[in-house]
Amino acid sequence: MRQSQLFTKTRKEAPSDEVAKNAQLLIRAGYAYKVMAGVYAYTPLGLRVLEKIKQIVREEMNTAGGQEIVMTSLQKKSTWEGTGRWDDAVVDVWFKSKLKDDTEVGLAWSHEEAILEMMQSFIKSYKDLPASVYQFQTKLRNELRAKSGIMRGREFVMKDMYSLHTTKEDMDMYYDKIIDAYKKCYERFGIGESTFVTFASGGAFTKFSHEFQTICDAGEDVLYVNEDQSVAVNEEVLDDATHELGIDKTVLKPVKSAEVGNIFKFGTEKSEKMGIYFTDSEGAQRPIYLASYGIGITRVMGVVVEKFADDKGIVWPASIAPFQVHLLGLGEDMADADRVYQDLIDAGVEVLYDDRTGVMAGEKFADADLLGMPTRIVISKRSLENGGAEVKGRTRSEGEIVPLTNLIAHVQKTH
Amino acid sequence: MRQSQLFTKTRKEAPSDEVAKNAQLLIRAGYAYKVMAGVYAYTPLGLRVLEKIKQIVREEMNTAGGQEIVMTSLQKKSTWEGTGRWDDAVVDVWFKSKLKDDTEVGLAWSHEEAILEMMQSFIKSYKDLPASVYQFQTKLRNELRAKSGIMRGREFVMKDMYSLHTTKEDMDMYYDKIIDAYKKCYERFGIGESTFVTFASGGAFTKFSHEFQTICDAGEDVLYVNEDQSVAVNEEVLDDATHELGIDKTVLKPVKSAEVGNIFKFGTEKSEKMGIYFTDSEGAQRPIYLASYGIGITRVMGVVVEKFADDKGIVWPASIAPFQVHLLGLGEDMADADRVYQDLIDAGVEVLYDDRTGVMAGEKFADADLLGMPTRIVISKRSLENGGAEVKGRTRSEGEIVPLTNLIAHVQKTH
Repeated sequence: MRQSQLFTKTRKEAPSDEVAKNAQLLIRAGYAYKVMAGVYAYTPLGLRVLEKIKQIVREEMNTAGGQEIVMTSLQKKSTWEGTGRWDDAVVDVWFKSKLKDDTEVGLAWSHEEAILEMMQSFIKSYKDLPASVYQFQTKLRNELRAKSGIMRGREFVMKDMYSLHTTKEDMDMYYDKIIDAYKKCYERFGIGESTFVTFASGGAFTKFSHEFQTICDAGEDVLYVNEDQSVAVNEEVLDDATHELGIDKTVLKPVKSAEVGNIFKFGTEKSEKMGIYFTDSEGAQRPIYLASYGIGITRVMGVVVEKFADDKGIVWPASIAPFQVHLLGLGEDMADADRVYQDLIDAGVEVLYDDRTGVMAGEKFADADLLGMPTRIVISKRSLENGGAEVKGRTRSEGEIVPLTNLIAHVQKTH
Repeated sequence: MRQSQLFTKTRKEAPSDEVAKNAQLLIRAGYAYKVMAGVYAYTPLGLRVLEKIKQIVREEMNTAGGQEIVMTSLQKKSTWEGTGRWDDAVVDVWFKSKLKDDTEVGLAWSHEEAILEMMQSFIKSYKDLPASVYQFQTKLRNELRAKSGIMRGREFVMKDMYSLHTTKEDMDMYYDKIIDAYKKCYERFGIGESTFVTFASGGAFTKFSHEFQTICDAGEDVLYVNEDQSVAVNEEVLDDATHELGIDKTVLKPVKSAEVGNIFKFGTEKSEKMGIYFTDSEGAQRPIYLASYGIGITRVMGVVVEKFADDKGIVWPASIAPFQVHLLGLGEDMADADRVYQDLIDAGVEVLYDDRTGVMAGEKFADADLLGMPTRIVISKRSLENGGAEVKGRTRSEGEIVPLTNLIAHVQKTH
């Protein structure tokens, strides 16, 4: 894409009311636009990042047998009454509104009850189970405060998956399979090494749920990990979990972390409350086992920005960067840069081309650092005199000259 | 995809409160699930159709220079006050809610004002124009009644595009370009021949807007067209438009039609009300020219179902069918069908494979008709004795036997 045609522009300052580093950088670079506190729109650059994160999750969920659907934002009161969660005193993040005839409707903050209710219309017998469905969906949550940028929005995108089973054993087996699928997701996002499966508070059915927590200074949680990082426990269940696991609490050290996923076994708790049963092989009615699995798509984007950004701007892992290459044409004559741009496109490389005229080299360099593509390629009079293009990784301090004839092969080798 | 693994099932009856044919068929076939009146979720089959419609629109909008973004559902009161459209007496389809501090928020029924407000933060000078942005977005509209299935929902998906210009001439030129892009979309959806660019009511800036209307018995509009179908006028502006165009009203005949798109020139009306200006080449402040372009994605899906369905079920045009081929394995031994399924997948054909055991042939045939894939391929003992697979188009009464060795080539020739 030619940067001269991109309608977004970089800006020197973030909005004065924006306190989160992730949102400050994303707004300054033109990835996001702040509508109000906790509510962000995504521009072409930002949308590309979100779609890449979604596609990684989609591939892993499909591999794990998930079937993609899309639920609705508008929800019925009756859907949530069985579990008592329509009540604002129980769930304090509802946005609610009314139809013309005064019927109350809810705006989806979660789809747990909604999905279970829908699945009931398709699942009658044990032959229809197991089933696993997921969606990418906007969630609306009426948070009292929204100061973490896109890491905790009032409106955000989540991948939520639900698996339904006839037995606890089948649910447990699938749950473990999804733990592996989630690990692959975080690895592919580029945050695998600092993301831990963590013991977190459970519910009526299980003592613990599991969170995926990424070590991150901007996180809202505190994680206790041991030296070799083989055990991680959320502060909220530290006593219980260490007791259960027989671990000496004193060997665990606290680090700040951000929740990037949460998986939960409801067992038969929800289906019993909602009256959702299947017919087993003997003809008896039995409640369905349910587990749920969430990844915050926009939150992952925010955590990646927080974790990797340096004082110059964003640093994207290649897997979720909007473009692999940021090509900078410097000087008046951009004929060589134009040719390289076309060659890169023809070779299937995702490239953002700074073809702007009348913009100083220093500004182009600063923008490239702020925007954070993995590889920067500069074509200038000086680089050509030195023998070709200057190629530099975003986090490297020095570039190298690559002859134009080798450039495509060099880029393809890198990515 | 193997039908035995698809969690949705066909059903003999639609919900008793569902009066629209499109929703009745989509629910019976397992494409959609009704959450409440005018609010539908989409299952794996339905989502595939929606994504195909979206991809066609995306390609045409990108070709026309549009840049994809995604706005938000939550909107501020202040965004809509400048044009007076926050007022429920002016816009009677708002869903509204409140933040914890009692600040009112709106749920997006449109993004016209919201996009213009966002664009203001990027567009300062004539050098930043023209710009064209679009999104696929859920709209929430508090309709008094919702009886048209997915053709008029309280929650639906729309592609809305907005173009911004320095002059009326530039806006007019782009507007005509988008008319062509829209025509291509409807052609690609398979409804090009029965879809007309229609004069419809305008606003403060232009006497007329344009609607794209598809002839359809289930439509809510009445279109007046002449014999060779070169002129089409919405009933609501019949007198004005015929007068303007110098057309004898008596040569126009009424037909029922459904609106599948609407494009509108706001000119400088909205930007003046909202105070959105650019700096021209002489340094003067001038209001931005705006036009908007909408296609109802879910509505197109509904119209296609209404138009083409027969008494057996849905008939998808190949371009938006969830799968090109519905492969039916009949009898106990499905080894040959299994092989054909794998061959089709290897050849890159999108295929739904009815591999269900213990389901009678008659039920499989009925399901294939209800689901509506363009091509049905049957592998049975009888078809193999006759020389291969029985291949039949959805709207044909008779199939033909194609030897298994020719099957892939035959299917690839058809699609």
